[in-house]
Parts: sequence; structure tokens; C-alpha cells
Amino acid sequence: MSSNDSNTTVAELRKLIADFVAERDWSQFHSPKNVSMALAIEAAELMEHFQWLTTEASRRLTDDPKAIADVGDELADVVGYSLALANELGIDVSHAIRAKMVKNAKKYPADEFRGRYRRDNEI
Amino acid sequence: MSSNDSNTTVAELRKLIADFVAERDWSQFHSPKNVSMALAIEAAELMEHFQWLTTEASRRLTDDPKAIADVGDELADVVGYSLALANELGIDVSHAIRAKMVKNAKKYPADEFRGRYRRDNEI
Amino acid sequence: MSSNDSNTTVAELRKLIADFVAERDWSQFHSPKNVSMALAIEAAELMEHFQWLTTEASRRLTDDPKAIADVGDELADVVGYSLALANELGIDVSHAIRAKMVKNAKKYPADEFRGRYRRDNEI
Amino acid sequence: MSSNDSNTTVAELRKLIADFVAERDWSQFHSPKNVSMALAIEAAELMEHFQWLTTEASRRLTDDPKAIADVGDELADVVGYSLALANELGIDVSHAIRAKMVKNAKKYPADEFRGRYRRDNEI
Repeated sequence: MSSNDSNTTVAELRKLIADFVAERDWSQFHSPKNVSMALAIEAAELMEHFQWLTTEASRRLTDDPKAIADVGDELADVVGYSLALANELGIDVSHAIRAKMVKNAKKYPADEFRGRYRRDNEI
Repeated sequence: MSSNDSNTTVAELRKLIADFVAERDWSQFHSPKNVSMALAIEAAELMEHFQWLTTEASRRLTDDPKAIADVGDELADVVGYSLALANELGIDVSHAIRAKMVKNAKKYPADEFRGRYRRDNEI
Repeated sequence: MSSNDSNTTVAELRKLIADFVAERDWSQFHSPKNVSMALAIEAAELMEHFQWLTTEASRRLTDDPKAIADVGDELADVVGYSLALANELGIDVSHAIRAKMVKNAKKYPADEFRGRYRRDNEI
Repeated sequence: MSSNDSNTTVAELRKLIADFVAERDWSQFHSPKNVSMALAIEAAELMEHFQWLTTEASRRLTDDPKAIADVGDELADVVGYSLALANELGIDVSHAIRAKMVKNAKKYPADEFRGRYRRDNEI
């Protein structure tokens, strides 16, 4: 059975990144400051694929397998550096996401924010 | 048993995000273009925590539980939007990361790049 | 006569930033690395104003004086840090822009790129 | 006399950008949303030059004329898109910077912030 998101734990992906860094003795470059920069740079490279498209056209990227593969490559870099940062700082990503989604659910109650991303009186 | 990176699959986190978006009917705002912007913005907010620190000082952030919790919150946003983008575009994150690490291993052979992040003749 | 873009030189704005930094003895924090991070963070804050808008809606922001003032504030931060970086590295911004526009004119000949941002065979 | 920051007004640089865009009929792509993305992407490319350097090493970049020229190229892109955004939204950059520096001077009084970038009780 091939590995995919359904049978891969976050810890398995973290180990993949940690081993790659250890094999190259790159931890010396992986200060949290540097990794946060690398992450922001990869996020910008990902964004570059959507830069000149309208919001609607960006939805139709799924029709273009080559473009999706390129975006997947960039997304891998973003998540990879996110996990590298989690490794350096000892943060449990699953716990952090669950905790944040609890906060978000309070900040954006479903009834009040259905179909809108801000309150009427906000700009 | 509490859930953590060792017993949480990527698909479980993806579903957490997908449900949150669906309950608010926010898919209309989640064009890939918009989500890529949100991701880059969150990556910048994460970077902000390290902005004025030296690279060495950024390693000592682990001594400060409050700072680590704040960084964990931002990291959750970054990974959360990464998964939201994967959901919109139908990208398997685990597959994309494994494929990218194979490419990276060829691009940066361990023997040649041990302790260095570029070749001698590169600037 | 009030000062505006027509009667203000780039050097005058650079001096405004340099004096501000000197008065606070902030040059110690203004390593080029740190300033480049600050610049990217401000660019993300600027982008945040357009995050959930369609491309067309973003053009209509000019109807909203409050929003334009807020965007002007962020743009001031971006240009301010750009000039701070130029100050730290001794780069003449006007010269750099003119040189870059000569390169761009060669890379994107007006005849070939009129109404398009890439060649037909590019993706 | 060659043109440089001392004898170039912001308006002259803005016109250089506006003419380039008009000659290619690129205003159709230059929605404020798209330009803000381009600006953030260029800021990330600029940052890339400092990504793996320590803060101190980034100060010594001035010893390397080739590196400074490359950084100048990226800085030109950042300021260029900043002016393109100002053009699209009708923002006077000089006015915005002066207004922001007045705000900043109140927020960061020189006496209180000399040699520090935050108050003692802030984290």
C-alpha cells in the first residue's frame, strides 16, 4: 500500500525532515530565525503561481496537472520548513492546530460568520 | 490517550480544517489565490517573532514557554492554511513531501553538502 | 508649498529615515538581514488589506478614503524599510531602479508583451 | 550630471514605472491586489540573499560588489512595485512616509527607545 495523507502521521513526516537535516549536519544553519525566513520565502514562491491570475482563474488550476505538480512542490517546501521549525522548537503541530481551531471556533462562531469573513461593522 | 503528532494522520488534520471551512461556507473565499496570500501573511507573522533577534538568540526561544506558545499559534495558522490549500487543489501533502525530499536528496547529496548549504563555487 | 512626490527627492526621504534610526541608536538592530525581514513583514501587512477581495474589488478601494489611508500607512512602512536597507548597504535607489527598468525593457519588449505578461509558450 | 537619489524626485521614479506599465498595457494586470502580491514576492526574493547569513555576516555584504549589485536589483523591484501600487491607488508616497514618521516618533520617543526596540515590560 502506498503512503498518503490517510496513513501517514505528522511524526513520520517530521522524522523525514529531521533525518535529512541531520545527514547534512544542517542544524547549524537551522536556527529558528533562519528557518522562519526560509518558510516565508517558500510561501512567496508558492504565491507566485497565483500572482497574475484572477481569484476565479486560480480555482481552475486543478485542470492543469503540470501546474498542480509545481504547486505541490512548493507546498512541500512550505510544510517541510514548518516541520523543520517544529523540530527545532519542540512544538507538537497537531496539538497546536487543534488548540488554534478551538480558538478560531470561538472567534468566528459558525452561525455569525456563515458566508462572511468579518462582521458587518468591521472593515 | 491524547492526540499528538505520533498518533495523528495528515488526513485527520485536513478534515479538521475542511470541516471548519464548510461549517462557515467559507469555500467561496478560499480560492487558491486567496489562500496562498493568507499563507504568506501567516508566515510573515510567524517570522515577526524572530525579526530583531540574532540567529543565536532565536535558538534560546525554547527557554520561554510563553514565546513558544505564541510561535506555536502562528505555526498552526501556517500549516492550517497549507492544508486548506491542499484541500482546495486536491494535493496529497505526504506524497508531495516525500517526492520533494527525493529531489532534494539528489540536489544536495549528503557527502557533498555536509556542513555547508552551497558548493564552494556558488555565491 | 507643501512637500509631495513632485518636490521631494529620494535622498530627502532617505535622510528622514536615517535621522530617525540615528536618534534612537537603532543601527545596531538594522543589520541588512533584519531589515530585509522587517521589509517582508510590512509587505505582508500591506497585502493583508487585499487578502479576501477579488482582483476587481481591490481596484474599487480608491472609493474608500479610510482604507486608502490605512494602505498608505503600510506602504510608508514598506518604502521606509526599503530606504533603511539602502542606507545600510549604500545603494542608490534611483540608479538601481533605472538600471532595472533598462533590463526589464529588454526582457519584456513592449511590442511582444503588450497586453500579456508572458509569452504564448510559457506557463 | 548623472541622475541619483540626490537629484531624482519620487515623482520622476513613479513616471518611469507608469510609462513602462502603460507601454505594455499592463494596467489590466495591475489591480492593487495583484501588485501587493508582486511586492511581497519581491520582498521575499530580496530576503533570500540574507537567509542563511548570521546578522553580523549580513553587514559584511558591503565588501562584495557583486552581491550588492544583486541586492540592488531586488530592491529596485520592491521599490518599483511600491511605486506601481502608489500609482494605481493615487497615494503620495512622500506624504505617507512623512505622516508615518510623525506617528512613529510619538510611538517610539527617542529618549525612551534609545538602544532598545521595545519597552522593558514588553515581550
